[in-house]
Amino acid sequence: MKIAVNVHLKKGVLDPQGKAVLHALETLGFTDVKDVRVGKQIIIDIDTADKKKAIEEAKKMADELLANPVIENYEIEVK
Amino acid sequence: MKIAVNVHLKKGVLDPQGKAVLHALETLGFTDVKDVRVGKQIIIDIDTADKKKAIEEAKKMADELLANPVIENYEIEVK
Repeated sequence: MKIAVNVHLKKGVLDPQGKAVLHALETLGFTDVKDVRVGKQIIIDIDTADKKKAIEEAKKMADELLANPVIENYEIEVK
Repeated sequence: MKIAVNVHLKKGVLDPQGKAVLHALETLGFTDVKDVRVGKQIIIDIDTADKKKAIEEAKKMADELLANPVIENYEIEVK
């Protein structure tokens, strides 16, 4: 079962990569872009068919390794 | 309207970051993880209410700037 963990900087934390992409898009003529945030999407293939268990395990992984709780939020998505 | 562009390395392209996460998870005791792929999730806030137009524009952005078509795939998601 594939689970995606989407990790993003918290609101209020400066995202220089997002700002760089925003400026590059403006330069390319995309003028109606208000904001860009760049984060990570980690896709984990867990060897189980139990959706609830997989989500719980992915949550633990995010807490222990994948996200930095000081500056990052994460959300979990079943793929 | 917020659109997410998920950019991942193509199948067959080595993902060293994913491999590193996989090994770290194993070390932490998550033994039922089969594979990990690490990609980017770019969230773009486009100033339009037209969903179709926003998706089309995000596609253009991905083609022109966000993804490297030689080694990366992308998918677009309305947030």
